[in-house]
Amino acid sequence: MALKSRPILDMNAFNAASDGCCDPLLDRRLKNCGAASVLYYRRPIEMVRAQGVWMEAADGSQYLDFYNNVSSVGHCHPQVVSAISAQAAQLNTNTRYLDRRVESYLERLKATLPTELSNVVMCCTGSEANDLALRIAIKATGRSGVIVTETAYHGNTLAVMEISPASYKQGEPSEHVHTIPAPSRVAYGNDIEVGFAQAVERAAQTLKRRGHPPAVFICDSIFSSDGVFTNPTKFLAGAVAAARNAGSLYIADEVQPGFARTGDTFWGFERHGVIPDIVTMGKPMGNGFPMAALVTHPELLAIFCRDVGYFNTFAGNALAAAAGMAVLDVIESEGLQQNATRVGAHLLARLGKIVTDDPRVVEVRGAGLFLGIDLCQPDDPGSPNPALAAELINALRDRHVLIGATGCYGQTLKVRPPLCLTTTEADLFVDALSDSLAVT
Amino acid sequence: MALKSRPILDMNAFNAASDGCCDPLLDRRLKNCGAASVLYYRRPIEMVRAQGVWMEAADGSQYLDFYNNVSSVGHCHPQVVSAISAQAAQLNTNTRYLDRRVESYLERLKATLPTELSNVVMCCTGSEANDLALRIAIKATGRSGVIVTETAYHGNTLAVMEISPASYKQGEPSEHVHTIPAPSRVAYGNDIEVGFAQAVERAAQTLKRRGHPPAVFICDSIFSSDGVFTNPTKFLAGAVAAARNAGSLYIADEVQPGFARTGDTFWGFERHGVIPDIVTMGKPMGNGFPMAALVTHPELLAIFCRDVGYFNTFAGNALAAAAGMAVLDVIESEGLQQNATRVGAHLLARLGKIVTDDPRVVEVRGAGLFLGIDLCQPDDPGSPNPALAAELINALRDRHVLIGATGCYGQTLKVRPPLCLTTTEADLFVDALSDSLAVT
Repeated sequence: MALKSRPILDMNAFNAASDGCCDPLLDRRLKNCGAASVLYYRRPIEMVRAQGVWMEAADGSQYLDFYNNVSSVGHCHPQVVSAISAQAAQLNTNTRYLDRRVESYLERLKATLPTELSNVVMCCTGSEANDLALRIAIKATGRSGVIVTETAYHGNTLAVMEISPASYKQGEPSEHVHTIPAPSRVAYGNDIEVGFAQAVERAAQTLKRRGHPPAVFICDSIFSSDGVFTNPTKFLAGAVAAARNAGSLYIADEVQPGFARTGDTFWGFERHGVIPDIVTMGKPMGNGFPMAALVTHPELLAIFCRDVGYFNTFAGNALAAAAGMAVLDVIESEGLQQNATRVGAHLLARLGKIVTDDPRVVEVRGAGLFLGIDLCQPDDPGSPNPALAAELINALRDRHVLIGATGCYGQTLKVRPPLCLTTTEADLFVDALSDSLAVT
Repeated sequence: MALKSRPILDMNAFNAASDGCCDPLLDRRLKNCGAASVLYYRRPIEMVRAQGVWMEAADGSQYLDFYNNVSSVGHCHPQVVSAISAQAAQLNTNTRYLDRRVESYLERLKATLPTELSNVVMCCTGSEANDLALRIAIKATGRSGVIVTETAYHGNTLAVMEISPASYKQGEPSEHVHTIPAPSRVAYGNDIEVGFAQAVERAAQTLKRRGHPPAVFICDSIFSSDGVFTNPTKFLAGAVAAARNAGSLYIADEVQPGFARTGDTFWGFERHGVIPDIVTMGKPMGNGFPMAALVTHPELLAIFCRDVGYFNTFAGNALAAAAGMAVLDVIESEGLQQNATRVGAHLLARLGKIVTDDPRVVEVRGAGLFLGIDLCQPDDPGSPNPALAAELINALRDRHVLIGATGCYGQTLKVRPPLCLTTTEADLFVDALSDSLAVT
């Protein structure tokens, strides 16, 4: 394949060199944030407020948000806002004091998870949770090797950036990291479970030969950065078994699929009938309040804590517990998991029609409200088309619909609206996508 | 010295094995958090609310907070609470959209710093900021060695835990890390600047010999975990020059001393007349809202960003900007830096009297409202007394005053009240300390 795998954001994001900068606010941003500044769209949008699935720009126009999976129960959900406001006024300290609100939250969270995973470590970000999970696995196994998918993203610390090929602008993984293709039909044919399991097995052997036997197989159960691979359910089971046969632990990175997004189940790994050794979570956990967690077996945590202390100043205090509890309440009281299933199925059906009609739209996959739309060259279904993805993202922006791309070439539209999406709003997106395809 | 350096928290914290567990809430906590549970005091306190420098326990009693440097402008400060509440209801998304509130905050923050440090990268925790700072320094120098003080704490990710000897329960630093004694009179005699600079120079040579020439000298400018070393001002200048002579960068970890706590200056490094290559900050930045940052030269950040993308989902959005701006506003409008100087000087003077009166209190040091009180054996001023520190911390808890310990043996009381402390409240602490000393 002629295209080199590259960071997704480069394709559709603002680029000062090619897009120019004539806006005073943009100029301030570039001066303040320098090379680390990343902005969506060739013409970035100034946002001022948001509610539900809608975001409002400075010019007063409304954008339908089909991208942001952090404000998962809806932007600025009044129940979450009110929980944060009330708790911030009452107490916001660290977890070295007892607090029954915190314990109630941890118990409520644990009730959504397999009973054997009974210890929670609260963190502030998914990166912190994955960094800690990696350390626990390395300590518990006495090993150093890591198996990840080839466009995985697990966070931004030194340790987890090394296992996040999606972040590399150049270079190759370190020798303790081995990448395998994501579980796509393109990579493994029709028996994804067997092919993916064999890839894990071979990766384990390679790592052993390099002197880094595998400590951990880590994957996002919906492969958000690899391109969104959802089906058939249970295809992860073989890979997890292969990893364990090779002496490795299995970390389920639920930062993106977790908290009811996939519809069928509350957690992404449940769709695959597997029980992880460690589960990490983050993004939608506090609907935007910075919080994350790791859940594991008491024995694994105890091994880690023999050598090193772990404390996280901001994490898991009463403010985080209030935000997190409100999110769980809203998911339940508004039936958002069921809504994700229902509206997700509607979206999938309507997008299926586009696949039939437009040869550049080669496949649509999804579980609940996490979908991927694969784009190919018009004359070659096997040839990814990231340029079209970038065009569509910017064309949809001009139609006031927010969306992004994923996949190893950036060829897949990543569909992740807030879970309160209605079928009417889903239709708005499909219509805008059809219109955009018609003019690109 | 007979005592082995060990984690400070072990000495005065709750220990389920020795302290027992007969409280249902404590039992829930241990079941939920397992081995990673760390609680202050032999008899942990259940907190329910807090305001200013006072925290209220579940039994209705009020505790004077002389420990928590996160709620630095006062617990649940109404202006910060109101800024968080208003912004949470309006917009809480990520920084890939433009937002003028964010840029205004970054500019306000930058105005407190040397002008050459003009790029800000927002993070969620001090750990993330230090992890990123370390990576930037490693990339910019093409080197791997790190010089830290021997009881430093720089965070909890894999990379920064390695440079945080305070977290080790056993084991020694990796070969790319070299530790030097903190800048105390005990370690370096009366010319701390020269002694500390020589220690950095020797550390650089050692690291070079090991094949890890120094990329970075990182220190907390008030040495919070090493025992609080504040004077003479400017003593850091020699060490920074020695590090740079050896080809290393200098990271100022301002997570603890920053944001006006040290009274004389807004940032701890300013007291020493040095300009860091990278400044990291966190804890008090949002008065408890999870936020942190790294500030550096555009050139250093650009080198890093050539190879790797950096994006932090929750960091630096409008909600963080609102919290951070409110904190800067309150520090200014309430004159908290001046208050830290004034009340800190009062505290230092009153504590000086205790040094004179009690042979077990060997020295008091401080800058603004960050003080250290060194405890020694009654018959030997050179012999640290962590057991007395642990007794005093628990005795003060029983007198409803919250305090902790620091230092390589845990022999130093660490005094860090909110910056809105009054002299009357300062006197309450000194009286409670005198009373506690009288009975221990």
